[in-house]
Amino acid sequence: MSNWDLLFIDAKLATMRPAEDGYGVVDDGAIAIRDGRIAWLGPAADLPAGEAEERRSLGGRWITPALIDCHTHLVFAGDRADEYERRLGGESYADIAAAGGGIRSTVAATRAAEIDELYDSAHDRLRQLARSGAATVEVKSGYGLDVASELKMLSVARNLGRSSGLSIRTTLLAAHAIPAEFEGRADRYIDQIIAELLPDIVENELADAVDAYVETIAFSAPQVARLFRATVEAGLPVKLHADQLSDGGGAELAAHFNALSADHLEYAADAGIRAMAEAGTAAVLLPGAYLTLGETRKPPVAMLRELGVPIAIATDLNPGTSPLASLPAAMAMASRLFGLTPAECLAGATREAARALGLDDRGILDVGLRADLAIWDIAHPRDLSYWMGVSPLDGLIVEGLDFDLG
Amino acid sequence: MSNWDLLFIDAKLATMRPAEDGYGVVDDGAIAIRDGRIAWLGPAADLPAGEAEERRSLGGRWITPALIDCHTHLVFAGDRADEYERRLGGESYADIAAAGGGIRSTVAATRAAEIDELYDSAHDRLRQLARSGAATVEVKSGYGLDVASELKMLSVARNLGRSSGLSIRTTLLAAHAIPAEFEGRADRYIDQIIAELLPDIVENELADAVDAYVETIAFSAPQVARLFRATVEAGLPVKLHADQLSDGGGAELAAHFNALSADHLEYAADAGIRAMAEAGTAAVLLPGAYLTLGETRKPPVAMLRELGVPIAIATDLNPGTSPLASLPAAMAMASRLFGLTPAECLAGATREAARALGLDDRGILDVGLRADLAIWDIAHPRDLSYWMGVSPLDGLIVEGLDFDLG
Repeated sequence: MSNWDLLFIDAKLATMRPAEDGYGVVDDGAIAIRDGRIAWLGPAADLPAGEAEERRSLGGRWITPALIDCHTHLVFAGDRADEYERRLGGESYADIAAAGGGIRSTVAATRAAEIDELYDSAHDRLRQLARSGAATVEVKSGYGLDVASELKMLSVARNLGRSSGLSIRTTLLAAHAIPAEFEGRADRYIDQIIAELLPDIVENELADAVDAYVETIAFSAPQVARLFRATVEAGLPVKLHADQLSDGGGAELAAHFNALSADHLEYAADAGIRAMAEAGTAAVLLPGAYLTLGETRKPPVAMLRELGVPIAIATDLNPGTSPLASLPAAMAMASRLFGLTPAECLAGATREAARALGLDDRGILDVGLRADLAIWDIAHPRDLSYWMGVSPLDGLIVEGLDFDLG
Repeated sequence: MSNWDLLFIDAKLATMRPAEDGYGVVDDGAIAIRDGRIAWLGPAADLPAGEAEERRSLGGRWITPALIDCHTHLVFAGDRADEYERRLGGESYADIAAAGGGIRSTVAATRAAEIDELYDSAHDRLRQLARSGAATVEVKSGYGLDVASELKMLSVARNLGRSSGLSIRTTLLAAHAIPAEFEGRADRYIDQIIAELLPDIVENELADAVDAYVETIAFSAPQVARLFRATVEAGLPVKLHADQLSDGGGAELAAHFNALSADHLEYAADAGIRAMAEAGTAAVLLPGAYLTLGETRKPPVAMLRELGVPIAIATDLNPGTSPLASLPAAMAMASRLFGLTPAECLAGATREAARALGLDDRGILDVGLRADLAIWDIAHPRDLSYWMGVSPLDGLIVEGLDFDLG
């Protein structure tokens, strides 16, 4: 009888447990897996006696926790590459929006799309994320903006969770933009979300959290507060797109509702960051959108560090402002654009990303946690932030099983 | 008897010949190859009668000219990821340089390295470039900074050209930095390059061009002019690292010597750009270094466009300021950071990159040119600049043969 299903030896480990060097390095390490969980890990010299069904030598390659993408808009139909090209050709966003472009084009395409079409295109993008090391991916709704289409998006996301071999967390983001049908009547749309969508997603367990966009071009703080009160009453945690383009009090609003995370934060006020620190709300930084929108105001990294706010990094994968499908690429950008250290970047895409999703069973390498491992052909984990445009992933293990990177 | 060795059908072509739409699109296209050259291309409906040894249907995938990376420092030893991490941790470049870091650490490691070691690590990086679509790569010396070590670097680059299956163009960049042995005596080092290195590389055909770095931290304009006079007399074309960190008159200097290209150009003066336009000198923009150094002054794209200066884009692959090994990643950055359109970005990594290397046998799809083709799984060539962190290359053909992307 075997003690373990799978044993990795001759590996370098970055456990990402809080450690002096930031990585929790074990130089000549081993990891034993049983029933999809980490059964043992540590220096190979300390490996207890035991038999493994399969023993795999990694020839000195690195193992980190599998990456976690805690903010994506993975499910959508339509193409905004043409719009991207037109903007670079000199057309204004206002002109493009007036001609039916912008988020409304994605909403129209997503409403019109069949479930299979949404599933297939999202699955292609999900595989890109997996090929760059992600085993857990959060997926938001928010391009449906009506009851049926929001439910359709969340169903597609749940289907990805059942059949892709990766772990998918779903988030209701019906309050992403004011749908055309509700222009000038945003409060009525919030009413509809509360009265019709929330009960349905709770009953059918379609979402693990509820998100909203507080911004001059989206919803007001009182509108979001009303949605969040109903959400918390219904027993779901909240997240918030906060202070991306202006200080809308988003960080404080998120903290007030003990949000799992407040995301973007370029314009967050000091008081908001302090409130997040007290509430234990994680900051999710999104360099892909910052770069694509040509922003110049950076999120308040020094203050986040000083107050000990967990800093996560995500792709924000979406067709309008962040067509980015790689967490290592997001890490390379976050180090260059926001000054995060390579260790902070890796923690941001593992340990802190797990916190931003309210997950305590992954994001670090430790006994009893999910055996979600990324295997890398690199000299050191800092290379993941240092190099740009490379694909050093050598293998991805999800709950103890090889994921086919194909 | 076959007319053609290989025939691609059911392909979309972006010929990149100067065209109204910027891409030279052929929607339902075919390309026939004979003896490593393009024998025919056009709409499939116009395909002349003929037999092909192999006929390959691409199922609607796109063919562009294979990409050309016209500015890299591919050959080096040592690792600067630790230095990158220390800088993000708060250490100053001056402190790191004083402790033996910076370019001097790369020079020390490269001088000490065996040829095989240099070859193997450069070959790994070259394969990364190929996997993102490059069939032609320029490789500079410049980490040797003594006669033997510069020759060693160029020999490694020539060996890559002989055995990698890709096309390598080599450039002598002995005037990259003032070696420690010549501190305060830069003129004597220029003397040595002219007296000892130039004749050797000419006799042994080790370099296709000569490059230099004119900058306050490197060589003065008169020093570079002296080197360039000798170079032109010896029959080689020149290129120049120009006006990257300050206006050192680099663009004008390059134009004065009819340089193939002036590279970086963030601080180039208007008069310099005008001189480049008259001389036919290409501009090579390097967004990886711009981003990694946290620069804020952009190259003068509007003026380059207005005066019709060819705009090329390259990775600048190097361990200090641009650890970047993908031309599509460079294109995605150039569109976001410099405002180039996706069509300009693709032209910059194909047609204009060929000009920056003085090559007229590649960079566009046309009859009689090298059959260097990149095959992409994309909806449109604009996607190469729009998406970040994806690897859509489906195949690479070099002189009519499949390159093994492994």
